[in-house]
Amino acid sequence: MKALVLKGKNNLSVEDFAINEQLSPTDVRIAIKKVGICGSDIHYYLHGRIGDFIVKEPMILGHEASGIVIETGPDVKHLKVGDRVCMEPGIPSLGSNATLQGKYNLDPTVRFWATPPVHGCMRESVVHPASFTFKLPDNVTLEEGALVEPLAIGVYSASTATVQPGDVAIVFGAGTIGIVTALAAVSSGCSKVILCDIKQGKLDIIKKHFPRNIVCINTTRESLAEVMKDIAPEGVDIIFEATGNPTVIADMIKYIRPAGRAVMIGMPSEPATYDVVAAQVKEVEIRHIFRYRNMYPRTINMIASETMNVKPLITHSYNFSDVIEAFRFAASMPENAIKIMISM
Amino acid sequence: MKALVLKGKNNLSVEDFAINEQLSPTDVRIAIKKVGICGSDIHYYLHGRIGDFIVKEPMILGHEASGIVIETGPDVKHLKVGDRVCMEPGIPSLGSNATLQGKYNLDPTVRFWATPPVHGCMRESVVHPASFTFKLPDNVTLEEGALVEPLAIGVYSASTATVQPGDVAIVFGAGTIGIVTALAAVSSGCSKVILCDIKQGKLDIIKKHFPRNIVCINTTRESLAEVMKDIAPEGVDIIFEATGNPTVIADMIKYIRPAGRAVMIGMPSEPATYDVVAAQVKEVEIRHIFRYRNMYPRTINMIASETMNVKPLITHSYNFSDVIEAFRFAASMPENAIKIMISM
Amino acid sequence: MKALVLKGKNNLSVEDFAINEQLSPTDVRIAIKKVGICGSDIHYYLHGRIGDFIVKEPMILGHEASGIVIETGPDVKHLKVGDRVCMEPGIPSLGSNATLQGKYNLDPTVRFWATPPVHGCMRESVVHPASFTFKLPDNVTLEEGALVEPLAIGVYSASTATVQPGDVAIVFGAGTIGIVTALAAVSSGCSKVILCDIKQGKLDIIKKHFPRNIVCINTTRESLAEVMKDIAPEGVDIIFEATGNPTVIADMIKYIRPAGRAVMIGMPSEPATYDVVAAQVKEVEIRHIFRYRNMYPRTINMIASETMNVKPLITHSYNFSDVIEAFRFAASMPENAIKIMISM
Amino acid sequence: MKALVLKGKNNLSVEDFAINEQLSPTDVRIAIKKVGICGSDIHYYLHGRIGDFIVKEPMILGHEASGIVIETGPDVKHLKVGDRVCMEPGIPSLGSNATLQGKYNLDPTVRFWATPPVHGCMRESVVHPASFTFKLPDNVTLEEGALVEPLAIGVYSASTATVQPGDVAIVFGAGTIGIVTALAAVSSGCSKVILCDIKQGKLDIIKKHFPRNIVCINTTRESLAEVMKDIAPEGVDIIFEATGNPTVIADMIKYIRPAGRAVMIGMPSEPATYDVVAAQVKEVEIRHIFRYRNMYPRTINMIASETMNVKPLITHSYNFSDVIEAFRFAASMPENAIKIMISM
Repeated sequence: MKALVLKGKNNLSVEDFAINEQLSPTDVRIAIKKVGICGSDIHYYLHGRIGDFIVKEPMILGHEASGIVIETGPDVKHLKVGDRVCMEPGIPSLGSNATLQGKYNLDPTVRFWATPPVHGCMRESVVHPASFTFKLPDNVTLEEGALVEPLAIGVYSASTATVQPGDVAIVFGAGTIGIVTALAAVSSGCSKVILCDIKQGKLDIIKKHFPRNIVCINTTRESLAEVMKDIAPEGVDIIFEATGNPTVIADMIKYIRPAGRAVMIGMPSEPATYDVVAAQVKEVEIRHIFRYRNMYPRTINMIASETMNVKPLITHSYNFSDVIEAFRFAASMPENAIKIMISM
Repeated sequence: MKALVLKGKNNLSVEDFAINEQLSPTDVRIAIKKVGICGSDIHYYLHGRIGDFIVKEPMILGHEASGIVIETGPDVKHLKVGDRVCMEPGIPSLGSNATLQGKYNLDPTVRFWATPPVHGCMRESVVHPASFTFKLPDNVTLEEGALVEPLAIGVYSASTATVQPGDVAIVFGAGTIGIVTALAAVSSGCSKVILCDIKQGKLDIIKKHFPRNIVCINTTRESLAEVMKDIAPEGVDIIFEATGNPTVIADMIKYIRPAGRAVMIGMPSEPATYDVVAAQVKEVEIRHIFRYRNMYPRTINMIASETMNVKPLITHSYNFSDVIEAFRFAASMPENAIKIMISM
Repeated sequence: MKALVLKGKNNLSVEDFAINEQLSPTDVRIAIKKVGICGSDIHYYLHGRIGDFIVKEPMILGHEASGIVIETGPDVKHLKVGDRVCMEPGIPSLGSNATLQGKYNLDPTVRFWATPPVHGCMRESVVHPASFTFKLPDNVTLEEGALVEPLAIGVYSASTATVQPGDVAIVFGAGTIGIVTALAAVSSGCSKVILCDIKQGKLDIIKKHFPRNIVCINTTRESLAEVMKDIAPEGVDIIFEATGNPTVIADMIKYIRPAGRAVMIGMPSEPATYDVVAAQVKEVEIRHIFRYRNMYPRTINMIASETMNVKPLITHSYNFSDVIEAFRFAASMPENAIKIMISM
Repeated sequence: MKALVLKGKNNLSVEDFAINEQLSPTDVRIAIKKVGICGSDIHYYLHGRIGDFIVKEPMILGHEASGIVIETGPDVKHLKVGDRVCMEPGIPSLGSNATLQGKYNLDPTVRFWATPPVHGCMRESVVHPASFTFKLPDNVTLEEGALVEPLAIGVYSASTATVQPGDVAIVFGAGTIGIVTALAAVSSGCSKVILCDIKQGKLDIIKKHFPRNIVCINTTRESLAEVMKDIAPEGVDIIFEATGNPTVIADMIKYIRPAGRAVMIGMPSEPATYDVVAAQVKEVEIRHIFRYRNMYPRTINMIASETMNVKPLITHSYNFSDVIEAFRFAASMPENAIKIMISM
């Protein structure tokens, strides 16, 4: 079948790729319809690796996808041919300790799309476990379905933060993950979210399209401390760290109120430093997240009920025939782009 | 000073009432501006008592209030004369076990406005501890300030329910408390709230003014089970019980999903029965609330950020000169009324 | 193979029973060595049913077991032939919603040993998923291994109660489950547990063998309220309800301190009544449990480290050749028995 | 009255010190009987300061105390003259935000004994709020009463760690706080605690006197990784960091199991570094504590019920006449000492 194949650093092509997938009794086969481009896809494209995950064999990219069910295994109950669906891309071992404890995302044997050596989903069809395939309600589009994957990270971040109604939060970093985290935080009860970045273009899009209680701060121009004097004079309830920047991490504790919490989303490339005593005096909790778990149904509910308006996240769309061009555009890190969507 | 005084069942009058309040160093004196009428005010008016709380001496009614600071004790830091404020009506003993554990609402020595023998606030001014007096932001009106008290119950209910983003909830009972609970639940992350009552007039107001993801059900006309087939086929995450009706309580467990929870807000006049085994098979948690604690700043934040639009809650307004008429109207239990507000 | 087969009410026999079990790649085959008799085994024996679970076909009894691994599937990593093990008797569907959320005990498709139509383990050998089979440390005996099943209920009860160090608890009911709950509560941080029953013989065994901070009360002779005056004058932190007696449930709220919690373990045969308003004034949380999940490794740890001394729980031992006699004895509800153990 | 007065670095003397304390209606006056020497007392003695807290005026030392009530204010209910008591040394502002939220230890206005400019309690008597004064049961000695202060830190650490029954923990650092944390962890449900230090003398005392499931490791002689292979091959559930050593902090994440947690007790003198990505892959929670709150009644319960045997903690005793000698001995950091107790 046609697929987007990465053979190493900068070596990306659409080609006919032989892939033979058996349908087990609890699987479904899905015709892929929409796939979003993720920062990790771009990173593999530009560098041929992320940390210890190295593209050694040709690998299909893509993991943010929706599609239509075209075949179902005999034991599948909740899905039928023709259903519009989105798919959770990481599949754990079902009998593992982590999975039985409800923390399947921490299972070290998880197989995740487009993470070597596991193929991704920018191709005509995939076979997928029905347990990780979710039907979309009628009022949720296939584009929105493909957004569920990055949104799930934001919703999981908000859930991990145990947002209390009326909380005030800071999100450091207005990349896609920072934005979806801000959206999820507001939808989860935050009365105000201060979203900090240094790219004005990004902040301008957010200001234009997203709820007014997301307050955008360009930290090269405005003082966060000054803004907080009005909004959260004793510090914010929650910090969402989505930059992975050690300088930001080193500085963040001072913005948190006593008994506040930080959720670490961004992944710094080296160990980071923080002020332990400052965190003790306030009894800060520092929580860490890895991808997400059990978030797809919740995220779909939130889109369907318009609790989150996610359509403005899709700033650019391409047909699969132009996918190489889409990757080149994404690789240029344009300030006016949030999510680039491919129609298969 | 002029005050609304209840001398017993049906014996209500506006009169000059001698009340001499000393200002301690940590108190403020507040000119009362707006007071909402609560169901408990009406209950005292009609029955002269609520349970064991009996009006034996003349008592001033009212506990949902906002006003303007007219005097401050020398140790008060966060308030000054002229500040627009709202006041938490229950004052605990500050050194009690319950208070030191952060559960001051459970302190048995709490003194609560308009609960015999403590006077309420439908009068020209009150002296109040600054710790329980909260400044209103510029974009929050005095009317909204007076709504903070009932809203705090809704926000506390949602907080007690530990709403997770994307949860689906049922609220049983569309009285004022049921409505503010539904509003708070949606603002706290619920993607859908099913609000059940039997009074169509009430439900019509809600449908007209409040968010679309509050789904109104008249249970005399529609089947809740039927509605849930689409919205929550495995049961809802949360039930908010705001009727105090033993028949509703006896029936509620079956609507909850495995690992769901119930928050008991309504106060039945006698013990209630439920299916323990059904609750065990699903590991339901039944949580109980008593008023609220630490909710005023959060609730004010939510109004200020327009997370909750609470203005439509005020369906009727009266001047203090017409307060007796307002009480008579409220006592008629009109279906088209939510909150009746008195301007002092 | 030889097995203990129940064919209906009072119809119990040891016989050669044809049972053909395939070993899947993730299974192990275990030679059964020790099996405890549970109250549910006795109930099926005497009544042929428990609620809606009816013995329609011959069924092997027993679900509290330990044994030795005699065969392993090719994918099994953590076990090998010769390992001494105990087995969790309830196997959920691995891809179900409940299981993926870490609440596999709530999966409605769980297959549980000796619950019609699923055979139990009082037989020569069983095939079992390796994920639900746990190696015993050298210092844990096979008898103790067979005790892990009932102990897991106690440990799960204590875990569900979120015991805080220094808490005081009441356990209502000194049956086997009440006793293991008291043991687990003490090992989980309770400084005192008041264990209430009406059978003096049972309480005498407990007093003799178990930790001194388990205080035994015969409620037909002593006043619980009187005992609490010294130990917990404001009420206990936790109530473990292990009688299933509606009279006990109706009365229990008054013994709980403000912000305390109740864990409902006993299963009443009909709905039960409680004082909702009393629970509200104290903000009691009523939690419900169904069996247990993820408790085997913890319980084995606690036995191995002698945090819990469980040997005195085994009051009577029989060989499998005398198993019918053991069931007759157990059915007589002897006050001097806690656990009756069968050697296979 | 006679008091132990510090006038600056190395300038310590017993002298008559004029101190005039008024008894408010909610206070008690206590004749001091036993006071433990804390590491912070020694630090002030040797350095004249701890961080920004500088001894500028003569200050009485001591904050771990028990005594006998000799006078009570008129509003005091739960204490009477002659009661044996211990006292919580930090008094918050009762109406502050932090206090009303039940986190009074985080109130920035807390006044804590022997923290400049607040006098300590190594003197004949003190006036103290009754709310922070706790009656000792008959079977708890005054020496044990004086131990409640350091023990409360251990119990609070265990409570903050949300120990689950059967958990395995590491405590880094076998100073007094490390030891009491290990004791509290075991009493709170840990089946095993691995206590790591480099001072063999200290570890030998612990091995001799404390429960066997506290496993002592001299990390200069034994490999922690090796010891964990048997006890916790997937990592421990909890790390208690009680060294404040940045090298230990930098290394600790690798010993924690997925979904485990770290409690930061030791206070490093500069910011510390950790591996954020390693913490993310396991979703570790890093919790920070500052002193304790609401722990005195629990800790007293645990001593009274012999859940914790704390007597061996007192390795040396001195009369107040020899207190200077006691301080000199303590300042030599003897390996065979845990707690040095002064009789007043």
